[in-house]
Amino acid sequence: MAAGEGDLKLLGLLVSPFVVRVRMALSMKGVSYEYIEQDIFNKGELLVRYNPVHKKVPVLIHNGKPVCESLAILEYIDDIWGASVLPADPYERAIARFWANYIDDKMFPSWIGLLKAETEEEKAEKVNQTLAVLMHLEDAFTQCSNGKAFFGGDSVGYLDLALGSNLFWFEALRELFGVAFIDEGRTPLLASWAERFGEAASVKEMVPSVDKALEHAKKFRAFFAAAAAAAK
Amino acid sequence: MAAGEGDLKLLGLLVSPFVVRVRMALSMKGVSYEYIEQDIFNKGELLVRYNPVHKKVPVLIHNGKPVCESLAILEYIDDIWGASVLPADPYERAIARFWANYIDDKMFPSWIGLLKAETEEEKAEKVNQTLAVLMHLEDAFTQCSNGKAFFGGDSVGYLDLALGSNLFWFEALRELFGVAFIDEGRTPLLASWAERFGEAASVKEMVPSVDKALEHAKKFRAFFAAAAAAAK
Repeated sequence: MAAGEGDLKLLGLLVSPFVVRVRMALSMKGVSYEYIEQDIFNKGELLVRYNPVHKKVPVLIHNGKPVCESLAILEYIDDIWGASVLPADPYERAIARFWANYIDDKMFPSWIGLLKAETEEEKAEKVNQTLAVLMHLEDAFTQCSNGKAFFGGDSVGYLDLALGSNLFWFEALRELFGVAFIDEGRTPLLASWAERFGEAASVKEMVPSVDKALEHAKKFRAFFAAAAAAAK
Repeated sequence: MAAGEGDLKLLGLLVSPFVVRVRMALSMKGVSYEYIEQDIFNKGELLVRYNPVHKKVPVLIHNGKPVCESLAILEYIDDIWGASVLPADPYERAIARFWANYIDDKMFPSWIGLLKAETEEEKAEKVNQTLAVLMHLEDAFTQCSNGKAFFGGDSVGYLDLALGSNLFWFEALRELFGVAFIDEGRTPLLASWAERFGEAASVKEMVPSVDKALEHAKKFRAFFAAAAAAAK
């Protein structure tokens, strides 16, 4: 059996950026798989069995063996199905990995923190944090794109997926909080990149609707408010 | 010029596990470089210039171009100087990346939290957290080693470096807090692995002394106590 053959399943949540980036990568490579939506507010047996350490989506299950953590999954997909989304050059690859980790370690906690914020003061702090990390990512675009259309150069690459999978959430956050996080005035390079990314045929069918994000945000905020109240 | 040639510098801190793992990898491959110790309590111009986003060590500067984040540096070293420390098999590589991230995202914050803890209650909590993550790493050893001597199989690999670079700190923590974190009773596989790792000729000269760790711990705790007092 060739490396890419056999049974492939993905445990996911349709509105998770971490899941969206994996689905985009699989779609770009024309890999078919069984998608199994998970209830993250009431974690089921499959998720606990295949990701016992973190119990988080996404989990890619290839011939019964789980791969967890979305960035590790993107590397695995590159290794197994080829047509790498990571840059070929080792230095560019190192830089792409650096910024992808930055997105997950700094950018994601900032904007998700906005949904968890209880007071106006906390909200303002998270808005400012998110805007500050996006300014760094504006610089990252200059560093990585070499003047081309995408972080990955002429076509969508690893870092485009890492950041682009969050874009529909910024739309939802604009509706919820009235802040345009990616904005022509403040982050002009990211703003025009975001338009190109949204139109890229290879990924656009995997972008969830803003309504789905808003619906999830409502559940998510209720869940966190209940947890915060219980902790008091 | 071949990929591995040219000028190589490492900005580091001798007692940082993140720096130690990079030095071990370079030593294993026989790569020579200029080592430049940094003062992390009073960050200098070099660190700010070469890692403006995080201002953290290690930074590997190859022909004037910086690579930051220790796990990304290990991948870069593999790519440039060969003799990979990462497993050759894509699935094993995905699992190694998963656990290395676990070490940095869960294990490191637990034990460093112990040094920052102000109350006995906080200390007890961090001790328990650290013991819990080490139980997961005991399972990881079974999963990764396939019954061999190291996480990487017959010789020291990526995950051995990721975890092994923290071992001298566990010795220091035992002296400071009286807890044997890696212990024959609780984590027998890790305990015997730690002995083998400590004796591995390829890495042992890069392990700082426990006294150096204790000396740093003293400065670190004073620094954090002052910062906590200032924030009150």
